[in-house]
Amino acid sequence: MSLADRIRNPALHSRIMSAEQAAALIPHGANVGMSGFTGAGYPKALPQALARRIEALHAAGEQFRIGLWTGASTAPELDGALAKVDGIEKRLPFQSDPICRQKINSGQMHFTDMHLSHVAQHAWFGFLGHLDVAVIEVVGILPDGRLIPSMAVGNNKTWLDLADKVIIEVNTLQPEALEGMHDVYYGTDLPPHRKPIPLVQPNDRIGEPYLRCDPDKIVAIVGAHQADRNTTFAAPDAISQRIAGHIIEFFQHEVKLGRLPAHLLPLQSGVGNVANAVLAGLNDGPFTGLTGFTKVLQDGMLDLLRSGKMVSASATSISLSTAALADFTANLDFYRQRIVLRPQEISNHPELVRRLGVIAMNAMIEADIYGNVNSTHTMGSNMMNGIGGSGDYARNGYLSIFVTPSLAKGGTISSIVPMVSHVDHTEHDVQIIVTEHGLADLRGLSPRQRAQLIIDRCAHPDYRDALRDYTERAWRDGPGRHTPHLLDEALAWHTRYLQTGSMQTAPAA
Amino acid sequence: MSLADRIRNPALHSRIMSAEQAAALIPHGANVGMSGFTGAGYPKALPQALARRIEALHAAGEQFRIGLWTGASTAPELDGALAKVDGIEKRLPFQSDPICRQKINSGQMHFTDMHLSHVAQHAWFGFLGHLDVAVIEVVGILPDGRLIPSMAVGNNKTWLDLADKVIIEVNTLQPEALEGMHDVYYGTDLPPHRKPIPLVQPNDRIGEPYLRCDPDKIVAIVGAHQADRNTTFAAPDAISQRIAGHIIEFFQHEVKLGRLPAHLLPLQSGVGNVANAVLAGLNDGPFTGLTGFTKVLQDGMLDLLRSGKMVSASATSISLSTAALADFTANLDFYRQRIVLRPQEISNHPELVRRLGVIAMNAMIEADIYGNVNSTHTMGSNMMNGIGGSGDYARNGYLSIFVTPSLAKGGTISSIVPMVSHVDHTEHDVQIIVTEHGLADLRGLSPRQRAQLIIDRCAHPDYRDALRDYTERAWRDGPGRHTPHLLDEALAWHTRYLQTGSMQTAPAA
Repeated sequence: MSLADRIRNPALHSRIMSAEQAAALIPHGANVGMSGFTGAGYPKALPQALARRIEALHAAGEQFRIGLWTGASTAPELDGALAKVDGIEKRLPFQSDPICRQKINSGQMHFTDMHLSHVAQHAWFGFLGHLDVAVIEVVGILPDGRLIPSMAVGNNKTWLDLADKVIIEVNTLQPEALEGMHDVYYGTDLPPHRKPIPLVQPNDRIGEPYLRCDPDKIVAIVGAHQADRNTTFAAPDAISQRIAGHIIEFFQHEVKLGRLPAHLLPLQSGVGNVANAVLAGLNDGPFTGLTGFTKVLQDGMLDLLRSGKMVSASATSISLSTAALADFTANLDFYRQRIVLRPQEISNHPELVRRLGVIAMNAMIEADIYGNVNSTHTMGSNMMNGIGGSGDYARNGYLSIFVTPSLAKGGTISSIVPMVSHVDHTEHDVQIIVTEHGLADLRGLSPRQRAQLIIDRCAHPDYRDALRDYTERAWRDGPGRHTPHLLDEALAWHTRYLQTGSMQTAPAA
Repeated sequence: MSLADRIRNPALHSRIMSAEQAAALIPHGANVGMSGFTGAGYPKALPQALARRIEALHAAGEQFRIGLWTGASTAPELDGALAKVDGIEKRLPFQSDPICRQKINSGQMHFTDMHLSHVAQHAWFGFLGHLDVAVIEVVGILPDGRLIPSMAVGNNKTWLDLADKVIIEVNTLQPEALEGMHDVYYGTDLPPHRKPIPLVQPNDRIGEPYLRCDPDKIVAIVGAHQADRNTTFAAPDAISQRIAGHIIEFFQHEVKLGRLPAHLLPLQSGVGNVANAVLAGLNDGPFTGLTGFTKVLQDGMLDLLRSGKMVSASATSISLSTAALADFTANLDFYRQRIVLRPQEISNHPELVRRLGVIAMNAMIEADIYGNVNSTHTMGSNMMNGIGGSGDYARNGYLSIFVTPSLAKGGTISSIVPMVSHVDHTEHDVQIIVTEHGLADLRGLSPRQRAQLIIDRCAHPDYRDALRDYTERAWRDGPGRHTPHLLDEALAWHTRYLQTGSMQTAPAA
């Protein structure tokens, strides 16, 4: 189907132009809100054209940088292309692109790491500055000008409402049959005029399937015919399978004790291989009638829907491997009945996460012996991706579970440390920590009790003695015994790694 | 009015007994949920009788300790008395008693520090263990057995519903005219059965004015005739007044830019002298039609209600100085029309704090140059009081403001440090930091931008050069430039204080 066929409003055909022409409509210094969430539904042609323009301008000695706001991570064609030409002054609220990351960590790009549920409202409140341009990928435009969203809703509603100018990128490779899968809630308002959000089941539809857009703001429509990032997942390895096994055993235990319903509660699952392995484990496990209330629907959750173990899933984005995407596209009628895609302010909303009692499962970089979690920084200074939605779910959910392999970098890094080098989730928000060695249930425990459990159950055996030694000396010699620490040694594991390449006292053989 | 007059259900008169007799009904090892929030509405006779019993049992060589759950802090008659006799095995979710604190920090008592909005639901979920006994102060009992709450609602509803046995303490010194001020919401449920909470204005009444209680569970009724803790506030000093001035100037600026409505948004104010000074400043300031949606109503907010600057206040507790209490008691009809006291799961509920757009103002111990806040620990190890409700409001509110004088302990401690020694509020949840020197507006900024503002605006001049020196060296020599840190030096200010008595390189003269 051609680009023109996808634009069912004839009056808008006059605004079709090349990506180069559209990119020329974005001025230096503009704040640009683009679509895109976890490598799905991001514009592809326009950002690459903009990157070429910036490169040419820089070569000509001209300044050109933008503020780039999205839903979450995008892909090389967007973050990568713009970061490579030093076209981004400030990035928010999340990224995972290697070039973008390098520019952030070398101090060449500002990055504002935000809870994903906060972004839309902070933009509305005026806390992030003025939004000049929106660049939104869609799969089509209705006769009345409304937009059929693509594989991610993200912050698109907010960008379309707030921006002065709108550039629409119609991606003819994205299936038009996505139409009807989305649920865009227009009932949010600014305080003091807010009302309860009328969602009580994970798959409730409370909005409309299209994005509204003032046609007068549309300054350009560009075509694209290009696939999303389509991350491939590694088959679950032994470590991921063991982590998944601990979680499923824990769920069974909780159901037996009456602390979880038989069909569990809506599942939120972070991004990546370990999260995917947990979902794969659930697909082989005893639970049925599952639901999902998450930010990104990946292969693991799609498998659960296909097998019938999961009856519905709510998300803001669908990010699949190429194989899973083929299944998804071939069976869109099946999935449309089971998947709802919402704006991220709804998929991650504290009100809804708490009401539904979401089971939050998120990956982390490291945890400390007292249960504080670092999700974002390596060695205290370098940004990995961002906090994403983990805080929205962990703080407000029924259960907050954090998972990681116990070792990283070939055993030179322990994921359990005396003190994390950066805190994203405090001891108050972390209930369950899981590594391949076991699960520490921290609910209701004091810091000292937590330390014992985390070391015994989760730390890798190679590091347990050193952790116990620290804990005992901190108890004996530290300034206090509520959260005993030796502050001159608390971060020594990290400095040792930076100096010697290993957290172990004697470098790994 | 006599105790018997306060118990309008004649069948319950038979359960009146001495505090000693009632204390004997609590077994060793029990989890006991007591009323009390910020030194208000806590039982007074029973805990002291229990402490005497424990002391006698310990003297006789018998073990006796309880798990003690409350709303928030209590007073010497409860926390102090029970901690003094080593009668508490585990305390949650908050405390501020000197003896209790000493036992926690010497490792003799476990303490679980929790978000105050989490406590009731975690008890309901079964995450905290079984609740054996509830001990609740009330001002009276209705003919049908329902209870008239006292000066704090806290977690009383939950304790009464969950406990096997209930001990009621009727405090005849608390005014019966409190009747009608409370609003106890019984619409909460467990997931997956939760519904939206139908509160859209801070002073909406959505429940009933009484606590339900199964009369068959009441094993004892004891009398008390004793005042609450009644903290006296210091008159605002110059430092507090300067902090208040910066906040009010900021509010005016935000109203002018259209980022705050003319009557602001519902105010939440933490506990203590600085918070009180901010409210005193508002009472002298230009704003009218204010509302409060907070956890504790203290003198400052009472003054705002009396002056008419504030039209209504919602809280879970009223904690006043003796002078303010006299005014409150003498004018209860006036205040009953303007104050709503709710369970703390409602006063602090993320759903409501976000919907209403609360302006959260909380005190802190220290902040670091990147905007992470420590609200609970001194020197990383010792517990001060607990996180309380600060996280509930800061994460979910419209604005999150943290305040502190720039110096502590006669200038030997800087409240702005390279890295906080404990994190309670991460960089993602901290928007505004205020000291007497100025206000740093961190909204939308990257870590490096935050560091510059916090040092320039908030740090004490005596420490600014050292902070700038650290920041510059971390930029130059650190492992990364997103959040530049020198991990072997990040906590050196704290260790220097522990070793020399001052964070300054050359000890203060």
